[in-house]
Amino acid sequence: MRTNRSLWVEEGQRCVGVIDQRQLPHMVGSLSLTSSDDVVFAIQDMAVRGAPLIGATAAFGVWFACLEAETQADPEGYLAAAIQRLRQSRPTAVNLFWALDRMERVVSGTRVFRGKAELARAEADRIVEEDVAVCEAIGRHGLPLLEDIHRRKGGEPVQILTHCNAGRLGCIAWGTATAPLYRAAQQGLPLHVWVDETRPRNQGFGLTAWELGQAGIPHTVIVDNAGGHLMQEGRVDLVLVGTDRTTRTGDAANKIGTYLKALAAKDNGVPFYVALPSATIDWKIRDGLREIPIETRNEAEVHFISGWDGSGFQRVRLTPEGCAAANPAFDVTPSRLISAFITERGICPATENGLLGLFPDFAT
Amino acid sequence: MRTNRSLWVEEGQRCVGVIDQRQLPHMVGSLSLTSSDDVVFAIQDMAVRGAPLIGATAAFGVWFACLEAETQADPEGYLAAAIQRLRQSRPTAVNLFWALDRMERVVSGTRVFRGKAELARAEADRIVEEDVAVCEAIGRHGLPLLEDIHRRKGGEPVQILTHCNAGRLGCIAWGTATAPLYRAAQQGLPLHVWVDETRPRNQGFGLTAWELGQAGIPHTVIVDNAGGHLMQEGRVDLVLVGTDRTTRTGDAANKIGTYLKALAAKDNGVPFYVALPSATIDWKIRDGLREIPIETRNEAEVHFISGWDGSGFQRVRLTPEGCAAANPAFDVTPSRLISAFITERGICPATENGLLGLFPDFAT
Repeated sequence: MRTNRSLWVEEGQRCVGVIDQRQLPHMVGSLSLTSSDDVVFAIQDMAVRGAPLIGATAAFGVWFACLEAETQADPEGYLAAAIQRLRQSRPTAVNLFWALDRMERVVSGTRVFRGKAELARAEADRIVEEDVAVCEAIGRHGLPLLEDIHRRKGGEPVQILTHCNAGRLGCIAWGTATAPLYRAAQQGLPLHVWVDETRPRNQGFGLTAWELGQAGIPHTVIVDNAGGHLMQEGRVDLVLVGTDRTTRTGDAANKIGTYLKALAAKDNGVPFYVALPSATIDWKIRDGLREIPIETRNEAEVHFISGWDGSGFQRVRLTPEGCAAANPAFDVTPSRLISAFITERGICPATENGLLGLFPDFAT
Repeated sequence: MRTNRSLWVEEGQRCVGVIDQRQLPHMVGSLSLTSSDDVVFAIQDMAVRGAPLIGATAAFGVWFACLEAETQADPEGYLAAAIQRLRQSRPTAVNLFWALDRMERVVSGTRVFRGKAELARAEADRIVEEDVAVCEAIGRHGLPLLEDIHRRKGGEPVQILTHCNAGRLGCIAWGTATAPLYRAAQQGLPLHVWVDETRPRNQGFGLTAWELGQAGIPHTVIVDNAGGHLMQEGRVDLVLVGTDRTTRTGDAANKIGTYLKALAAKDNGVPFYVALPSATIDWKIRDGLREIPIETRNEAEVHFISGWDGSGFQRVRLTPEGCAAANPAFDVTPSRLISAFITERGICPATENGLLGLFPDFAT
């Protein structure tokens, strides 16, 4: 396993390896994906998660689907159905649809299925390398924000709060929100990261704390309730999160609870930045609250929690038998609460003009 | 066990029974307290919790201490030390100090220890009955707020969001924030309560959901991250919480995360009410953020979680080995975010004048 990336193609094999994120931080293991159905399952069950990684994994799902289609009676019908299953694996992250649209365009370039598979593989590889380059650029553009705070604080460690995992585990490498942190750490800038637990799936405790620990970046885990209090006490210099879908006007859907941290940041004069790879912008929509579909996940994710008992995973119940639970997976942070976006092309205000200024060629 | 109250004196015995709140909702059991040290332990370990119940339990701790002192070489010294241990059992809830001050005044009325014990027992009984009456009155005064919303909604169920447990389990009966709900339910007013999990100790899932379930009040559990999103979607008509300490100017310390819900309520035009028994007002302080000491609890509460595996409790680890955690237990909601207080004497604005208007005789 190459744990320096979250996804890799096994050399010469019809097999994509991914870190199995359901087992972190207690076990570091990988999952071999060898079919389009494997990819659908891995996305739905959140063995892979994070908008960019979902998009890249789905791209390899199209590669598998092309290979599988060759032996079907109706290969075109099979491929269309497989892409449809991939499209329905998660509803909120726009990268999934962006990657699948891109893959569909590419594989329509030939009617020969062997040729489709080759085109798909090459395009999926490109999506992966582009994602690495985009995240690396986000890190480069975000670094000066941290350097400025460090200077203003007279050399004291910069205190960052982050929610969920917009880390390298949600991408291929670097991460989006974590990219400036990794780059700052490489430069020797002193940092400390407050890591939100991120209930109900605990991606902060399980994933972000793990990857920051691997990188040797100082961090402290907190429950999702604590961030506002830390900001009131002046113990947070900036909030830095990712996004799963951003409107052309700058509203950002991200993991449930992000909106609460944005409100607290505003109330305490703490800058609130969203790391935004351009693939995450949905140029077709303007109103995040009305137009971004919010995934509702299984109630069981709320009732039960899984943890490590010293020798294995245990799943325990937290709620009374028979009570109802609601489990919305994302919320929308209105653009008015966002200080700026950090994109692969630089930093811009969270407004339509801001985004169009950096991405005039992307807007449709 | 008399589960219609959270605390009771065993008839004719030197024994106070309490519901063991550490085991809820999975096991309903009680704990017998027979010494002042038992009381200190029960408060520190949160077998009893909630500002009013902490105060009442501590009052019986003074009764035990008077009984214990009779057989000591230095009974006065013993009693003073025992009261000091009780005073140091939890730092944030002011009811604890209020109850202990009141008990100290009463027992100083005689120098005979047998007499002190009798006075202490009578005063502790009075604190209990007063708490029941105060909570009952809060319910009476809060009811019209719910009736108004019910009318405005044309008879649709009133949607309430609550955080932590300001329920009957945190008091003797009725609860503070739950008192208006219980009263409304008795009147047949249709209600639905969103119950915040309340990490890290999950009092919402474990206590509030359990007691609402016992009372047959419809409710849905949610993670702490979800409330802002529900308010954005217009699915919350009012937020109703308790408080552990309130300044004379109306800042309210309550369970960590309350401040985030207050911000979301403000941002979405949702009324945010605090149920406030007057014993919870600290008339000596004006600035909640600067003057209310915020308890920091053990890191283990963040790293580990306990739940039910079908046959018993299991404690599992959520975070990577060796990582640091911070665990502030309360935050302060500034008065500007509070729509009004619901007190035993009626409803008032969250301001010094508002509080003085209702409690001119209390202010010092």
